[in-house]
Order: sequence, then structure tokens, then C-alpha cells
Amino acid sequence: MTAGIASVRSSEETARLAADTMWAGDNASRALGMEILGVGPGTATLAMTVTEAMTNGHGTAHGGFIFALADSAFAFACNSHGDVTVASHCDITFIRPGKRGDRLIATAREVSRAGRSGIYDVRVSADGVTIAEFRGMSRTVGGSFIEAVASAPESRTP
Amino acid sequence: MTAGIASVRSSEETARLAADTMWAGDNASRALGMEILGVGPGTATLAMTVTEAMTNGHGTAHGGFIFALADSAFAFACNSHGDVTVASHCDITFIRPGKRGDRLIATAREVSRAGRSGIYDVRVSADGVTIAEFRGMSRTVGGSFIEAVASAPESRTP
Amino acid sequence: MTAGIASVRSSEETARLAADTMWAGDNASRALGMEILGVGPGTATLAMTVTEAMTNGHGTAHGGFIFALADSAFAFACNSHGDVTVASHCDITFIRPGKRGDRLIATAREVSRAGRSGIYDVRVSADGVTIAEFRGMSRTVGGSFIEAVASAPESRTP
Amino acid sequence: MTAGIASVRSSEETARLAADTMWAGDNASRALGMEILGVGPGTATLAMTVTEAMTNGHGTAHGGFIFALADSAFAFACNSHGDVTVASHCDITFIRPGKRGDRLIATAREVSRAGRSGIYDVRVSADGVTIAEFRGMSRTVGGSFIEAVASAPESRTP
Repeated sequence: MTAGIASVRSSEETARLAADTMWAGDNASRALGMEILGVGPGTATLAMTVTEAMTNGHGTAHGGFIFALADSAFAFACNSHGDVTVASHCDITFIRPGKRGDRLIATAREVSRAGRSGIYDVRVSADGVTIAEFRGMSRTVGGSFIEAVASAPESRTP
Repeated sequence: MTAGIASVRSSEETARLAADTMWAGDNASRALGMEILGVGPGTATLAMTVTEAMTNGHGTAHGGFIFALADSAFAFACNSHGDVTVASHCDITFIRPGKRGDRLIATAREVSRAGRSGIYDVRVSADGVTIAEFRGMSRTVGGSFIEAVASAPESRTP
Repeated sequence: MTAGIASVRSSEETARLAADTMWAGDNASRALGMEILGVGPGTATLAMTVTEAMTNGHGTAHGGFIFALADSAFAFACNSHGDVTVASHCDITFIRPGKRGDRLIATAREVSRAGRSGIYDVRVSADGVTIAEFRGMSRTVGGSFIEAVASAPESRTP
Repeated sequence: MTAGIASVRSSEETARLAADTMWAGDNASRALGMEILGVGPGTATLAMTVTEAMTNGHGTAHGGFIFALADSAFAFACNSHGDVTVASHCDITFIRPGKRGDRLIATAREVSRAGRSGIYDVRVSADGVTIAEFRGMSRTVGGSFIEAVASAPESRTP
């Protein structure tokens, strides 16, 4: 869709460049202690440890933080092609509770991309056991990722 | 379902008592600066201000924090009847970006409650403009809220 | 968005005209025995009786037909403003089974409309008892409804 | 969960037996011209051709029929383990329109199964091109499939 970063680089390089650019501005993901384990075309893997401040009285993780990790993985995956893409709709099924101290891993993969619309699935697990399954719908809003980062204050790219 | 707190109190009192008990243990909602504006039978209204640490480079809120606020409002609403109830599935549609400094208001209402299953809708708005629409499915897991808080480490009640 | 049918008619008239035009071409809704009980700006109410051919061995309705009724109500509601609008994403929660002979009523209402995107909720009930809750996301694809009916073979307007 | 059909048969045989039993009572899927192409533990593949009666004026399939096919594939997959399992929540994203005459193929796979809850994804395609992506949440309601078919009029197993 854009001539910019996509055309002169491999799809792997585009994914890394988009991730680097996003990460630099992403106060939220950094403040939550997220870590990017890998990105590729249509994929992203992030990690985050459940801290005391992310829990309720039972020592189990508030769903908002599990969602936030999945949502960030989704954002890195759906922006990996170099075009600015935002979340339009997400759903999450909570399967088992996350616990204080768990190192959560979110793995995002592209299920579908057609026109400006995409579907991405994210599995959140701890020690190899699934905690939650997330599905996100994305919409590409135009412009290359890098240009838009500087100029599109309206877009939501976590 | 439980004889405990529900039987000897009005439904309004039960909702307030459940909320107080939940809030006392809810590190996550407090750490995010949430504030309970009101609770009632099947309803809850919470507020949260979008801080710098909740944003990406554009000054727009990471979807995870918008979700977290809605999810907390959902939790207070679905636990307002005094029985321990957990989230099983949630979805959220992002309509407009939240911005740094926005005071977000999440208003949860009960759409349906049948057997152990419930549906709750939460609207998140800023200055009266809708930011996101959230729908949560809940499942009552048994026991009164207060007893379960002490004894059910598996349940996810944010 | 369109000057056509919307500008010279009341919003009620636009809703009725859009519904008439859609209904004329909607083999599917007619073949299922649906009936339009009412349409208005952002709203639609449809009825359908659960026949033998819509059931499984228990005499309970296949979820596909409950969904179809809700989806049609959604379609009439989201097209009621006169602009061609298609479903992009729908979800449904099954609360109680529908039974053979039930006259199902689906009531759609507009939850949000911003830019080209809309959210519509549909409750499906039988004898005043809720059977299912449906939420649909729509996208306006451009052109007035009437012109597009004739010229846009790609659009999905049930 | 049940000693019945599951314990004395291979998981493949259990899946086939459950499918045969369901199919015998499933007026709806048969009336829509569905065909079972395959079932296995946690999986099912069904086909259905889009007829004139399933379309609107554009010759495109009403979303309800696409959903119905996906929902049936989901039902066969989530009941394949031999325990009666019903749909609690489903969502579908429409990616491209189905057209009159298309032979739609729905392929269901198990994403997660924990306790009584399961998640199943179904892709609906025509000529190898994805038409829709469906995700279903299931709940096992107890009893073996075969016994429950005879005795549980409340359960929704399409």
C-alpha cells in the first residue's frame, strides 16, 4: 500500500523497522514491563511478568493487563507490514487465571488480511499453559507506518 | 444463590458491600488510579484519567487501559449481587482514541442474567463522547462474594 | 453521506424506503418466513417462527436460524439511514434454546454510529423471554442504498 | 467425563459415532443441504452450496447461512469427544461475500479445551478463498452425547 519502507526492504526487515518505531513511542508497553521477543511479517511475540500492582487480592492478574499484553502483540503483528494499522475490535476469552510472578508470553499470528481489514489471533500463556485466547480485527488507515507515526495523532497504535 | 450477604440486606447494600470488599483487594484498579463513582444492583460506574504512562507516542491511550477500566466496571457490576462471578469472555470495539489527560468514564449495565451466566455492557466515554463499547460475559462460580475472596485463589475477580 | 433518498425525506421515510428496497431483493429473509414488524432510524423489529426444518432432534432451534433473524434485523437497522451498509463482524450469545413453534422477535437498536462504523444490538426473544443477545458491527460502503442495490454486486446486504 | 461411548472406542470412532447420532436428528443442517466431509477428535469439515433461497437481490449469501454452516461445523467438532456440548457464544467476521452457487467449506478446529469450556475456530471458504472466520465458545453440559440426545430437550446441539 505504501512505497515507503515496504518496497526497498525484505518483509522481515520491514517488520523489525515498524516494531522499532512503534516501540520507541510506546510508553504504555514499556511502562508495563513488556519485552519484544520477536517480530516477523504478520507475527509478534511479547513477554510481560505479572507484578503485584497487576493483581487483585487473590494474587491473580486483572484481566486488563492480560488484555494489554495481547493487544500489544496484536498491534506489532498487524503493523508489521509497514502500513499504519489500528485495532477496531478485539475479544478475549479467559481460560485460566494469571498469577503474580507469572511470565506471560503472547504470541500473535495473522489469520486473514484482505483489503484494509485483518484478523489476528493471540495466545497468552504462562509456562506453556494457555491463559487466554485473544482475537483482534484491524484496519489499515493509510500512509506508511513511519510517516504516520509522526503525523497521525488520531490513530491508536498501542 | 448464597444466603450470606444477599439475604439480610437490600440489593443496593449488597452491591456496595461487594464493591467495598472487592476494592480493598484490587491492587490493579487502585494502581491505575480508578475511582468508583457508583455501584448498584447490576450496575457500576468507574472513572480513570489517561496518564502519560498509558499512552503511545501520539498521546493516545493504549487499548489495554481502556479495556482495563471497562473490565473493572464489568467486574463490579457482575459481582454486585453478592455471588462470586468471574469474566469468561469480553469484547471491545474502539470507536475513537482516548487521549492523555482524558477523564474516562465507564458505565456498566446488566443486559441479561440467566442461571450462572450474565451479559454486561460497558460504555467508555470522555466528555460525553463514546470512546469504546465493551460487552462482557460472566459466570457465577459459587459461594458468596465475601467468603470466596478469602478462599478461592483461582477466581479472576479484578 | 448521500444526497439521494436521505435529503428529501424524513428519517422515518428513509428507513421505510430502504427497508422496502432491501426486502424486495431479500430472498433469504422471505424464504425463512421473516416478517418486518417495524423499522425506524437505527431500529428494526422482525419476527420469525421456528419451523420443523429449523430444528435438531430435540425440537430446539439450530443457532444458525436465530442468528439469521438477528442478522436481518441488524441489516435493516444499519441500512435505515439510506446509505449502503454491510456487516463486518457479529457476535451472539445463546441464553436459552428456541423451540419449534416459537415466534421469535428480534429487536435491533443502534448503539453507536461514528464515521463509517456502527454498532447495533439485537435482542431475540420468544414470549417476552430473551433467547439470545447479538451485537453487530457495520461499515458503510458508500453510495445511497437504492443506487447501490442496483450496482454493487459485491456488497453483503442480507 | 462419561464412561459411555468414549471409554471403549478410539477417539476417532467416538467422533464418528457422535456425528452420526447428531446428524440423524439434525433436520436443520440436512434441510440446508449440508454435507459432512469429515470429523475427528476436535475437528469437523462440512460443505454447503449457496442456493437462490439463501441469497439477497445481489446474488450474495445472507450472513445467516454462512453462520449456520460454521455453527454446524463447530457443533460437530465440540461434540466429537462424546460429551454433550452446547454453544454459548459465537462470533463471525465476514471477509468476502459468498455467492449463489458457491460450494462453501467450513473447517472447524479445536483451539482450547479446559474444564467444561472450549474454543473452536471455523474458517469458511469457497474455492480456497476465505469468506468468513468464526470463533465459537462451547460448554459441556454433562452426560454422554448419546444418552443426552434422548433426554435433554433443553440443550442446543444443532
